[in-house]
Amino acid sequence: MTAQPTLAERLLNGDKRALARAITLVESDDPAGWELVREVFPHTGHAAIIGLTGAPGAGKSTLIGALTRLRRQKDRQVAVLSIDPSSPFTHGALLGDRIRLTEHFLDPGVFIRSMANRGALGGLSEAALQAALLMDAAGKDDVFLETVGVGQAEVDVIDHADTVVLVLMPGSGDSIQALKAGVMEIPDIIVVNKADHPLTDTMIREIRGVLSLAPQRGWRVPIVKTEAGRGEGVDQLVERLDEHRAYIEAEGTLSERRRRNLRNEVLALCTFRLRRRLEEALGEDAEFTRLLDEVVGRRLDPASAATRILERFDAGEAASRR
Amino acid sequence: MTAQPTLAERLLNGDKRALARAITLVESDDPAGWELVREVFPHTGHAAIIGLTGAPGAGKSTLIGALTRLRRQKDRQVAVLSIDPSSPFTHGALLGDRIRLTEHFLDPGVFIRSMANRGALGGLSEAALQAALLMDAAGKDDVFLETVGVGQAEVDVIDHADTVVLVLMPGSGDSIQALKAGVMEIPDIIVVNKADHPLTDTMIREIRGVLSLAPQRGWRVPIVKTEAGRGEGVDQLVERLDEHRAYIEAEGTLSERRRRNLRNEVLALCTFRLRRRLEEALGEDAEFTRLLDEVVGRRLDPASAATRILERFDAGEAASRR
Repeated sequence: MTAQPTLAERLLNGDKRALARAITLVESDDPAGWELVREVFPHTGHAAIIGLTGAPGAGKSTLIGALTRLRRQKDRQVAVLSIDPSSPFTHGALLGDRIRLTEHFLDPGVFIRSMANRGALGGLSEAALQAALLMDAAGKDDVFLETVGVGQAEVDVIDHADTVVLVLMPGSGDSIQALKAGVMEIPDIIVVNKADHPLTDTMIREIRGVLSLAPQRGWRVPIVKTEAGRGEGVDQLVERLDEHRAYIEAEGTLSERRRRNLRNEVLALCTFRLRRRLEEALGEDAEFTRLLDEVVGRRLDPASAATRILERFDAGEAASRR
Repeated sequence: MTAQPTLAERLLNGDKRALARAITLVESDDPAGWELVREVFPHTGHAAIIGLTGAPGAGKSTLIGALTRLRRQKDRQVAVLSIDPSSPFTHGALLGDRIRLTEHFLDPGVFIRSMANRGALGGLSEAALQAALLMDAAGKDDVFLETVGVGQAEVDVIDHADTVVLVLMPGSGDSIQALKAGVMEIPDIIVVNKADHPLTDTMIREIRGVLSLAPQRGWRVPIVKTEAGRGEGVDQLVERLDEHRAYIEAEGTLSERRRRNLRNEVLALCTFRLRRRLEEALGEDAEFTRLLDEVVGRRLDPASAATRILERFDAGEAASRR
């Protein structure tokens, strides 16, 4: 009689249902989920983590569908994690996209998952990153992270990619403005999707202008024109992805980037737990309510209230360790 | 011989340069800025804080320009705080907007300020909220907060408004998707700007559909059609703003909302300071580097590393209080 394989064993063997179950545990902040990540973590680091970011409607999902098809032709295992409140993955905005994805839903070599922002205080990006680790451990060769490019939570997620692809659409210059302003970091690859649009060449000139002002690094950011809906230009995008991968592996950038990203993840987890501890402490504290009354009455300012609350929190923490 | 008035006194007298200086102090996290907020806080609570949110390009700045003109005709003092990386206030994307605002720049009764997201860890929204308090204390009757509607930092800012206005543009359904998905909270007023667009009526039908599914509250969310560039519909928007103000004052919703918002602000300040303390502690800690090496080598998972780091942090905090 052999023992039933554990969830971790099934996940490491690439069992799709085990992976789905594991991500649900992580997403619901179940201690078993964290335990599982701990167990499989030594088996991570193999997957190429590719982040795709860009405004809603730029065609990220369609592009990922097309990329997935090409990767599968090379027999690579693919996972998609979509962190996008308005994503077609979750809400079916675009029928075409859904049809294109349905094709992949039936493929055992493709795992697709979406995560919606439920307003968790910093919890979403942590859960997303753990999910990416689980996908990696399950033997996926390519993990595509899809996010809307605005906002800190999305930036936190995309920062964990080895390669960042910015997807733009001709005629919408907002992302270019963000690049120009230095709010958005320069990505590794820029895609102009829906390149049959008459404003495509104008947009490419604008992008070149922004890139020429950016500090020069070793890697020259390529601009790829695609029409993801018809699969056009996607093979060139795959080539650029492979070139970027080869470049960061050869230059040591990959390990540098992963070190920085893991550092940020550890810090984010620490902050998240400190905040939770604080909220638990305040939930039982009548003095907090009294201080809040003072703030609401405009007798005590929020920053001074925060100082007093932290003093109480520190004292409570010290007492609990005695 | 009379003493020079202090910065706080000048600010409370509505001195524009004092207000500008005060916000710079807060923005650069100068202790003098926090001290100033503490001093003037008892004089806050008068201003109507109106948040305008919506995708880049929806015309928020133009709308604020038009609203400002109408408010000034009633001799109300206006302040505008724009938290938008791609905002025309900062980066001059749209020449027309800049011209419209230049008119207001010269008006002593209007104060305009932009804040760019510099990647501060939670610092931006705190600085923005302190800036809004300073504007309030300086005697502004209306404070307009402008943000791009996606992302946690922006949500944190908009949560501090008494009235939230969502600005949509016909033909871009992303914000409606976000409403539908429950990611974006139902605003108090919805504006369909650029209402000369052929898809305006389709969009209004869609919005009505979403609103009909939302839980019914006492306030019926009005939909206002505007063409802000030509000033059309802006007087109706002002009427809806005044109605909403009267409603929340009569129903007690205003004080409820402000209590919730002040609570969140106090908590955010506490979390921000805990994170800063943690980073300072780690900066000097060789053991942190060693633990990080273990994580990078995939021998220790990020969550377990976070646990060990917090244990060290707690011990250090306890020791520093001895």
